[in-house]
Amino acid sequence: MRKLKRSARLVEMTQYLLARPHTLVSLTAFADRYQSAKSSISEDLAIIKEVFEEEGLGELHTLAGAAGGVKFLPKMDKTEALGIIKGICRELEQPERVLPGGYLYMTDMLGQPSLMNDVGRMFATVFADRQLDVIMTVETKGIPLAYATATYLNLPVVIVRRDNKVTEGSAVSINYVSGSNKRIQTMSLARRALRERARVLIIDDFMRAGGTIQGMMDLLYEFEATVAGVGVFVESGEVEMDERLLEDYVSLAKLTAVDLKTKQTTVLPGNYFRS
Amino acid sequence: MRKLKRSARLVEMTQYLLARPHTLVSLTAFADRYQSAKSSISEDLAIIKEVFEEEGLGELHTLAGAAGGVKFLPKMDKTEALGIIKGICRELEQPERVLPGGYLYMTDMLGQPSLMNDVGRMFATVFADRQLDVIMTVETKGIPLAYATATYLNLPVVIVRRDNKVTEGSAVSINYVSGSNKRIQTMSLARRALRERARVLIIDDFMRAGGTIQGMMDLLYEFEATVAGVGVFVESGEVEMDERLLEDYVSLAKLTAVDLKTKQTTVLPGNYFRS
Repeated sequence: MRKLKRSARLVEMTQYLLARPHTLVSLTAFADRYQSAKSSISEDLAIIKEVFEEEGLGELHTLAGAAGGVKFLPKMDKTEALGIIKGICRELEQPERVLPGGYLYMTDMLGQPSLMNDVGRMFATVFADRQLDVIMTVETKGIPLAYATATYLNLPVVIVRRDNKVTEGSAVSINYVSGSNKRIQTMSLARRALRERARVLIIDDFMRAGGTIQGMMDLLYEFEATVAGVGVFVESGEVEMDERLLEDYVSLAKLTAVDLKTKQTTVLPGNYFRS
Repeated sequence: MRKLKRSARLVEMTQYLLARPHTLVSLTAFADRYQSAKSSISEDLAIIKEVFEEEGLGELHTLAGAAGGVKFLPKMDKTEALGIIKGICRELEQPERVLPGGYLYMTDMLGQPSLMNDVGRMFATVFADRQLDVIMTVETKGIPLAYATATYLNLPVVIVRRDNKVTEGSAVSINYVSGSNKRIQTMSLARRALRERARVLIIDDFMRAGGTIQGMMDLLYEFEATVAGVGVFVESGEVEMDERLLEDYVSLAKLTAVDLKTKQTTVLPGNYFRS
């Protein structure tokens, strides 16, 4: 790259860091890239750090020493997150979203990449320090959330299938009971999709009693992997305490009541905002 | 937002534009946001434009006049794209990827968000001018590509299901014959997922004869929607000319041969690089 003026270098460094979250970039690499002194690079980074932190985009961690460098950790502060989640709650309370059986239509919202990216940044904030190796979800609707989170955390995604696809090679399958309809179902994961002893973050779009997530945890046990966190976008509060299969999870919104007659629903911010 | 110095403003404007692709931002909005004169904003935009275009990140279109403003169109130039695709081809040629039946294991690559974002930026370049309303894919493996493309094009995603889920409300279903195994299968899309007469970009991870994509096109016909483009990540070249169901598509890579005995495969850049 040719030598840039400071103004152009700031633009370039900003996009470079934004495109490489949770990645250590050495000062030497920047100095070489821009043919500039490390002292100039450090001054630039101080400016970028101040803007990122004031804007609530995330943290810029600088590591001193010979192996030193800078790492961008995308974050969203809780106040901004709560504002976005409150908007989502109001949207989810629209009466036309209530489907037969008390299900809530939210596929259109899961289809908005910018909303998924906001939610992914929230999960990336919650789980930033968990030393994760991989993010797992089960097809289909949790996939965009898992990828959005994975982009901000710079991690790979594995998708558990509800059948055993021939294109995946040998796989591990388990049976589980879905909380929503009490039926026995199967999920499977390709043997080569996950290395043993990996630290895994489970992400899903919706949780009722937690049967599907419990199934993923059982599957992870077969891989000798560790569940390092569970994040769900919307949890249903219409579950008796003794029905609930897991306690240690983070939810961003909670569906507390669905009245099938009046089509009235109440959706409130999830347990993330109670701590 | 408090008044920023030029250096901080450049950092802020860069992240603001990168986060809002294909969105017109008025100069007035920027001037208000940064409490700066429009002439200063214009100078900043000229710097950002130059860096973005030199770095091959995309184009910054400025629209003059009272309704004027600036729009960031993420792009990737063909030389950079070809370099990335050649790396992908070499990776796909690894013999351990050949599965029984001549399938190629590529799920791990589809699980890398940064790779999906690169490929999404390629598709966003190809289809930038098609006046699209929505991106469509069929579950499961095309989903990350569809979202990555949608993020860069600022469009919603609809996912066609291989079954008819109760949580989607009323749906339109069609039968189709998958090219890979010649079986009749079903795909469906919720009635409310797509407005009529929408212009749709179809994205998928793999295409053999094109049966699945033809199925999506038939489904779109039921919604009186228009197919405005078809993009596939990898196409199989092991298809007789008269088997091929569609001609008008863009592929990024082409699997030309799989030898089941030697596990030798050949993967070359797709038709996008031949034009």
